[in-house]
Amino acid sequence: MATLDKITPRDVDFAKWYTDVCLTAKLVSYSNTKGSMIMCPNGYAIWEEIQNNLNQRIKMTNHENVQMPLFIPESLLNIEKEHVKGFAPEVAWITYGGEEKLDERLCVRPTSEVLFCEHFKNIIKSYRDLPKLYNQWCTIVRWEKSTRPFLRSREILWQEGHTMHSSEQEAKEETLRMLKVYEDFQRNDLALPVIVGRKTEKEKFAGALETYTIEAMMYDGVALQNGTSHYFGNHFAKAFDIKFLDKDNTYKNPYQTSWGSSTRMIGAVIMTHSDDNGLVLPPKIAPTKVIFIPISNDDEIKNAINKISDKLKVTYKIDVSDKSPGYKFAEAEVLGIPIRVEVGMRDLKNNEVTLVRRDTLEKIKVNVDLASDKIEELLDTIQKDMYNRALKRRNSMLYEAKNYEEFKSLALKPGFIKINWCENEACEEKIKNDFGLKSRCIIDEKSDGNCAICGKKGKVKIYFGKQY
Amino acid sequence: MATLDKITPRDVDFAKWYTDVCLTAKLVSYSNTKGSMIMCPNGYAIWEEIQNNLNQRIKMTNHENVQMPLFIPESLLNIEKEHVKGFAPEVAWITYGGEEKLDERLCVRPTSEVLFCEHFKNIIKSYRDLPKLYNQWCTIVRWEKSTRPFLRSREILWQEGHTMHSSEQEAKEETLRMLKVYEDFQRNDLALPVIVGRKTEKEKFAGALETYTIEAMMYDGVALQNGTSHYFGNHFAKAFDIKFLDKDNTYKNPYQTSWGSSTRMIGAVIMTHSDDNGLVLPPKIAPTKVIFIPISNDDEIKNAINKISDKLKVTYKIDVSDKSPGYKFAEAEVLGIPIRVEVGMRDLKNNEVTLVRRDTLEKIKVNVDLASDKIEELLDTIQKDMYNRALKRRNSMLYEAKNYEEFKSLALKPGFIKINWCENEACEEKIKNDFGLKSRCIIDEKSDGNCAICGKKGKVKIYFGKQY
Repeated sequence: MATLDKITPRDVDFAKWYTDVCLTAKLVSYSNTKGSMIMCPNGYAIWEEIQNNLNQRIKMTNHENVQMPLFIPESLLNIEKEHVKGFAPEVAWITYGGEEKLDERLCVRPTSEVLFCEHFKNIIKSYRDLPKLYNQWCTIVRWEKSTRPFLRSREILWQEGHTMHSSEQEAKEETLRMLKVYEDFQRNDLALPVIVGRKTEKEKFAGALETYTIEAMMYDGVALQNGTSHYFGNHFAKAFDIKFLDKDNTYKNPYQTSWGSSTRMIGAVIMTHSDDNGLVLPPKIAPTKVIFIPISNDDEIKNAINKISDKLKVTYKIDVSDKSPGYKFAEAEVLGIPIRVEVGMRDLKNNEVTLVRRDTLEKIKVNVDLASDKIEELLDTIQKDMYNRALKRRNSMLYEAKNYEEFKSLALKPGFIKINWCENEACEEKIKNDFGLKSRCIIDEKSDGNCAICGKKGKVKIYFGKQY
Repeated sequence: MATLDKITPRDVDFAKWYTDVCLTAKLVSYSNTKGSMIMCPNGYAIWEEIQNNLNQRIKMTNHENVQMPLFIPESLLNIEKEHVKGFAPEVAWITYGGEEKLDERLCVRPTSEVLFCEHFKNIIKSYRDLPKLYNQWCTIVRWEKSTRPFLRSREILWQEGHTMHSSEQEAKEETLRMLKVYEDFQRNDLALPVIVGRKTEKEKFAGALETYTIEAMMYDGVALQNGTSHYFGNHFAKAFDIKFLDKDNTYKNPYQTSWGSSTRMIGAVIMTHSDDNGLVLPPKIAPTKVIFIPISNDDEIKNAINKISDKLKVTYKIDVSDKSPGYKFAEAEVLGIPIRVEVGMRDLKNNEVTLVRRDTLEKIKVNVDLASDKIEELLDTIQKDMYNRALKRRNSMLYEAKNYEEFKSLALKPGFIKINWCENEACEEKIKNDFGLKSRCIIDEKSDGNCAICGKKGKVKIYFGKQY
């Protein structure tokens, strides 16, 4: 009999467990192109679900999809000084086209601010041309040294929004609007409890005035930055000489935002919800929501499955392969299908089938005639329960430190530590040097004491934690 | 008053007309990255419609979407000799990652056969693993010297299917199945009359045993190759050492296909259907099917528009901008929206509105209460009429030549010339050298005479024509 590959237990070796889940559920495969992964059908199907859901939210907020070039001429990347400083060390350079050496090197886009700015310069002339609310789904490349499936790779599938506005206020509202879109999507569809806030000066995006972030906490207490939204003011617009004639008949530079999220969200889903049996997917982004497993080949079983599945409004599969029922159960678990329906003769004598929840492995016997309603109800329940369990676990790893001693006593624990902070970069540096923890984000909560590090007046509340 | 940019008449300068339509309808915009275009919201929305439609057909035929790496290590590209000979001269080479010179150059994928083969080698072990039916939507790069929007550019958005089969017959069936999928999609959704057939040895894809093609004829009689499907036999499988244990307990190399279609289809739609007023889109791929234009601000007009649009099952827009009705009419025409609905007080006195067909500019008065049904019916009529008009025009430019003199007398006419052909490459070469015409495809029609060029026995029927 065929057996599934063994998954290293999560509490024995979290990193190995993660890789095992990715490979055993056939989400990804390694390739000979160092640093790039192959997204296999099971992995890419999850990305398609995420794209569909998030794309709708992006369009509902009036953004339009476009497609910019893949390559950036070196001179274009060089226009905005902060930005190039941040990105030049990690781009891939094209130097030859066929046999011919290029006059100017091209980099593969690591992000597309400069490409959008160049285009905005051509199309924005008047206040009537604003706002421009653009988004693109594409591949970017950043030359990472070490890579891990979904979390960090040289090649990243993502969406990046780029917008231009006639006023500072409107651009700031856009920055926060899209942060909220990400937050809602991740809470409701990915069942991820997330902390939202502002990055420190040290951690913000190269060239941004303000960077807002979605910080998720993984099962092991380590942070995953799961989406960012940037406010640029108008200094890219100035560098690129983008101007519009305003209603008052004067020329002004427009105000800019950008925001991005990537396949990293799949990594967050895995590291938050999955277990030692494999993947656990929130129903809303599971490509297959239900799998029917016939225990034998009897006609009554086929009829019962048809009776239930005909009424289902969600995507389902029927496993009619020649594997054993036990193997099929294990495989459905590895793949993270939210509900499996075991249909056997013993249950059918009572006109029942057994629903098995993937998240809890709980078995529920239901009447055949009520099964389709029950399945759809149970999918909602699973979605909510997954969020609540993740929230409870996350909250159990949130700490607060009043002073350096308290910080020190908490620093080795998995999770995030909240402190009052004076906003002095020296204190942020000291935490990084002493404990290897980076700032996650400044949250929307008033400081109520002195800075936990230097003891001077606290100005904001901020979280620190280890990160992927 | 704002005016739209002038479009060069189609019969005055076809090339200029084409570019004018692309730019005036805001489908694309030029960028500073030489050879790459920007797809603006109007252009990208058409691509999204095409993707949705074609993706469904690809999934209905049991293919799964995946994502392979963007880069190919040089040694991997070099494995299959015919293939590398065809593609190496036109790839973009990455030589630096950040500051660091790479040990091995990477090219940006010009097509992904070798990447799929490398992966297939890892995942195909037994006949139970076959067939593998994969597809990906992605960007490819070919270092073209001269470029034109949608038709030819360094960067191409496309889909590429790659499949592996246990038998020659099954792989050949797959090659033809996907050719048929393309043909049906282009006829039914793009309203393109197409000729399907097999490429000659000289024109086939680098590394393929057989290449099948979809040949569309543009308004000016010039061919556009609009999708290809390749049968590879098992020689890539041999070169990559891909083997499976068959039912008879022996190791065999699987048989392979690939097939691709791209944003070039948008170019074909424009050059087949559009006119001197701008874009004309087949309803099935028009992002907006209907636009309502209120002639004045009266409440009766708003009410009538709401009454009709509430019942519509198709995507529509209401143009409530402060432009003049005349400008709005012209703009709706430039954008190619299949039906515009003019709603004015004079018509409403008779409880009527005026539908204007974009394809014929015909005006049709309809009762407000019947308008929504009539609109949906008219969309079907437009779709069919566009196909039939294009078919009639295409057929009027198909010629047949029995001998060299006849060929010579037809060679300067726009269109395709059919001949009996001996299958000798010398005759194909001679036509290219004497008249600048390339073979389009060998069609499924028996030869009924001698080769038009050399006079020897004809073996097949083949079309020749100029191409984009």
